[in-house]
Amino acid sequence: MKRTTYVVDTTKSLHALLRPLPLQGVQLRDTFWAPRIHTNAHVTLPSQYTHCEETERIANFRRAAGREEGEFVGLFFNDSDVYKWLEAVGSNDVISDSPALQIIARSVVADIVSAQRSDGYLNSYFSKARSDERWTNFDLHEMYCAGHLMQAAVAIYRGNGDRVALDAACGMADHIDATFGPVDQGKRPITDGHPEIELALVELYRATNNQRYLTLADFMVSVRGANQIRNKVFDYDYYQDHVPYRDLDVVIGHAVRMLYLAAGATDVWLETGDASLKRAIDAQWLNLTQKRMYVSGGIGSRWHGEAIGDDYELPNDTAYTETCAAIASVMWNWRLLQGTGEARYADLLEWTLYNAVMPGLSLSGSEYFYQNPLSNNGSHRRSAWFGCACCPPNVARLLAQLGSYVASVDNDTLWIHTYIQGSIDTRGSGLDAAVQVTTDYPWDGRIRVSVTRGGQWGLKLRVPSWASGATVLINGERRAAQPDSYVTIRRAWQIGDEVVLDLPMNPRLMSAHPAVQNNAGRVAVARGPILYCVEQADHEQPVASLHIDARTKWQVVDGPSALGHHKALHASGTTVATPEGALYAPWRRDAGSPVTLTLIPYHLWANREAGAMNVWITVENQ
Amino acid sequence: MKRTTYVVDTTKSLHALLRPLPLQGVQLRDTFWAPRIHTNAHVTLPSQYTHCEETERIANFRRAAGREEGEFVGLFFNDSDVYKWLEAVGSNDVISDSPALQIIARSVVADIVSAQRSDGYLNSYFSKARSDERWTNFDLHEMYCAGHLMQAAVAIYRGNGDRVALDAACGMADHIDATFGPVDQGKRPITDGHPEIELALVELYRATNNQRYLTLADFMVSVRGANQIRNKVFDYDYYQDHVPYRDLDVVIGHAVRMLYLAAGATDVWLETGDASLKRAIDAQWLNLTQKRMYVSGGIGSRWHGEAIGDDYELPNDTAYTETCAAIASVMWNWRLLQGTGEARYADLLEWTLYNAVMPGLSLSGSEYFYQNPLSNNGSHRRSAWFGCACCPPNVARLLAQLGSYVASVDNDTLWIHTYIQGSIDTRGSGLDAAVQVTTDYPWDGRIRVSVTRGGQWGLKLRVPSWASGATVLINGERRAAQPDSYVTIRRAWQIGDEVVLDLPMNPRLMSAHPAVQNNAGRVAVARGPILYCVEQADHEQPVASLHIDARTKWQVVDGPSALGHHKALHASGTTVATPEGALYAPWRRDAGSPVTLTLIPYHLWANREAGAMNVWITVENQ
Repeated sequence: MKRTTYVVDTTKSLHALLRPLPLQGVQLRDTFWAPRIHTNAHVTLPSQYTHCEETERIANFRRAAGREEGEFVGLFFNDSDVYKWLEAVGSNDVISDSPALQIIARSVVADIVSAQRSDGYLNSYFSKARSDERWTNFDLHEMYCAGHLMQAAVAIYRGNGDRVALDAACGMADHIDATFGPVDQGKRPITDGHPEIELALVELYRATNNQRYLTLADFMVSVRGANQIRNKVFDYDYYQDHVPYRDLDVVIGHAVRMLYLAAGATDVWLETGDASLKRAIDAQWLNLTQKRMYVSGGIGSRWHGEAIGDDYELPNDTAYTETCAAIASVMWNWRLLQGTGEARYADLLEWTLYNAVMPGLSLSGSEYFYQNPLSNNGSHRRSAWFGCACCPPNVARLLAQLGSYVASVDNDTLWIHTYIQGSIDTRGSGLDAAVQVTTDYPWDGRIRVSVTRGGQWGLKLRVPSWASGATVLINGERRAAQPDSYVTIRRAWQIGDEVVLDLPMNPRLMSAHPAVQNNAGRVAVARGPILYCVEQADHEQPVASLHIDARTKWQVVDGPSALGHHKALHASGTTVATPEGALYAPWRRDAGSPVTLTLIPYHLWANREAGAMNVWITVENQ
Repeated sequence: MKRTTYVVDTTKSLHALLRPLPLQGVQLRDTFWAPRIHTNAHVTLPSQYTHCEETERIANFRRAAGREEGEFVGLFFNDSDVYKWLEAVGSNDVISDSPALQIIARSVVADIVSAQRSDGYLNSYFSKARSDERWTNFDLHEMYCAGHLMQAAVAIYRGNGDRVALDAACGMADHIDATFGPVDQGKRPITDGHPEIELALVELYRATNNQRYLTLADFMVSVRGANQIRNKVFDYDYYQDHVPYRDLDVVIGHAVRMLYLAAGATDVWLETGDASLKRAIDAQWLNLTQKRMYVSGGIGSRWHGEAIGDDYELPNDTAYTETCAAIASVMWNWRLLQGTGEARYADLLEWTLYNAVMPGLSLSGSEYFYQNPLSNNGSHRRSAWFGCACCPPNVARLLAQLGSYVASVDNDTLWIHTYIQGSIDTRGSGLDAAVQVTTDYPWDGRIRVSVTRGGQWGLKLRVPSWASGATVLINGERRAAQPDSYVTIRRAWQIGDEVVLDLPMNPRLMSAHPAVQNNAGRVAVARGPILYCVEQADHEQPVASLHIDARTKWQVVDGPSALGHHKALHASGTTVATPEGALYAPWRRDAGSPVTLTLIPYHLWANREAGAMNVWITVENQ
């Protein structure tokens, strides 16, 4: 049975301005996402299952249940990778016909639930001899794993109505709720080391209507700041436990923990409307976007602690920018967008998808980046799997759920946040509208929205922040459109009515704030929602020697066919000599020799032979 | 009893071109080093003793001996900090009158030796319940601690003839020698996780003439490369155990481990003349200096693993550049200089001392940097101590031994490597010469060397690599001097003969190799052997907004008095607007407003109010 499926179900959230569309309401038929989602269903998800089996991640559950010989193998949070894979399969089931994956998933769920203890506790690492160590070290990701169990269970339940995983997730949630909470209820007021359970509990609440889960999520956000959790290497701020969340006005510490926490706090706000939460969230978002985010949308400046850096600490070659952190940013911005309808969140969500998440996955769908540096000497290549394999199933679940990020509704309006060729049907959302989107976006800026089911409703089309000079034609009538906002068209639509949005797609030179000293005198190149880079495969001269002409004439061309359908850019520039020898030498002006630069989309790098790559390019001829 | 004291005693090394001077042969009476060495004796060493006691580092020995209640406290390698402090006191005793430190040191030695087991084993962490865990995990620094024990013991023995620590060190060395070595001798062929014991064993050999220690040192270097040691986070290359040392042609992995290993291998080469070692050492040195070293001489690009980066991976704000790694570079270059007499090693040694080691210590002598970034927002400040406190006593021992790096001799020539006002007397070295050095170097380029004991001998004066246009006047007769070499004067010296070396001290703009993309379009400023930086305390505009004029006229001025006697620089430049708000914006040419930049020596930064600092400055007006 296929059901009405939401990924983040704000349909009944009291403080959400927007409601989501069911996942099946958006059908993608474009050249960018549709093939990737197909590959996700047919390559990525099956191969990830194999990796999970081969690394004994699924056997761990059977062993914890006593159904198989052997001890737990791997990292203490390996359960979570299985849960994320299951969540991906649960969502994928709604949009793709993959009966084999469903059969496997049911078997995996059976293994998981067999490891659940009678008190509801479920974690394969803390089994057998380690059963006594439950809930003693809150840096061992017990709640994190529980959160991913809840998300997986909700995805499966929403997708096909199967309650097996959901019942197990509720059992674990009930166990946690009975154990942790305010002291005056006789519970333990614990700060968990890795946020995730907050947003999961809110989704579990949305799926079950059990208010206790929302209350517990709120508690988990609110308990932080009591200086409870640190270790020999990292202090409280690494764990976002140094100040109460409502007083936290920066993004800090471990990047994924910070952004999962912010997403969870935003979920709580969507349900409770707690203004003190929203003030903190707003301050964090501004700090992130104005001081601590890479131009790709990537987050995490430091390998040490996979951490966000100080203001303007954004080194390019040693950027950490974990794929999971970018996904967390998508999750957070989606929640903020649903709450507010503000275009800036959709803008960052789209930008992050194309430029910070998608670099994490190979075109083949079978190799992953954990880190996404903005320049590299060619040594950084994708891997088929990792010992700490959080990123691969995270990309997979995002791709399976991608359609859910395209559009929303409010009571009388269809909001389109990002443009992907295909159809949008709002049936089941409380608004009865349907449109067809025809476009080659993100490679072309013309988007045709044709009405396929008429009626009296509003249509909001997002105009990206970079789209100065955008125009809208409504049945042939032209209107200007303000960047970084939604243009609104309200009318009695007839089938066949057409709105054409034209977004200027001229390549752009971007500079960083002067305080990002690494990028002084350098520019990044973008076109539309796509960040570009230079890669060695397209150049004879070392990538590091390429400078771009500030006054270049641009050529927009079909890029190397090995990278699939996309647009590459040609620009004029210079190349400076790169002699072997002295690392430091007396400064002299080097005018360089003329050269033509080829820029490819940053998300496509490292899909050909190994070679250097660079996003921030020294600018000449100012 | 004060004895003839060498720090690295190559007096009998078969393959050393140069011999060291006794520590007491060099008397420093300058304004840079003499006050710092005085502070070292009177502030740094006493306060470090207090820290060692307060953190129970010394109590650990008494507890291991069963003479005091309680368990081991702290990190498993805390013994080594006490040993390095002892080595510093042992050397300091030769040059400074500090009877209180001597009394304390004897008591500390007594505590240490009381913890030695009957089989010679000595390590306070592996005592009591952990005694059974000895030599089971070679990432737990047992050999590293043993090496520092040997260095401390040798320093004390050379300084005052006291054999108590030396006997203990020999006992531990004998225990290790009986346990580890070639399989065909029935021993264990183990790669240790943290090199240090190699150079220590060679020094112990030099102090005792026990050939077994040299043989064991050679074995310890040679055993590496068998892929024995890694952990969950770091692979074999982090431990320099991925290829045999003689095949290692890069510097790689944990910076301090790499450079201690290279120094130890160089010590082995000095004794054995093994050409295959020297070939590897040469390749490593070239890789370091041409591709993996900061302009400060600092080493270690990554916080993650305190590691050396890939070629040209030299981020400024997230530089690790551990103070200990710079000290290790001094130790390595000193050994290479003694072996070869090549000026390039003295050049890098001097540069590293001023620009990579000395930033690690506050002017007060009581606070330390562990990391030495090349740009910072003002948040990075020195600390009075660290949980992992390797750097503070490392700086202390280097300062106590500083005089030993000034000059060497060969059979008929006095080599002066670096210029510090004071006197040099070679008596006891096999050459009978004495000179007085009068100079305000490193702030002034004029160096007068006056003969105070005549005779027929050669005088070699180093001309630094940056000193194009240097001249030498010998009793009034002018001669040109080639940079990066030694100028040689041989004659029958009379008392009062004078040689005046004039080193041009015009400020210099330096650029980095184009492959260091962070530094494209940026320059570093140096004058003489001193690297400069801009610090917020001297500027109204944000440091990050300051650009330097490529055609600036320079003013060399007395710098802020709070920083002691030194020269600061004024340069013309521009300041660009640094608006709050957008982190990334459309690129536009910003000509900036005129401003005067004040540059202070990099080693003096962070001695005033907290504020941003920057070494690599964007260059304008090319």
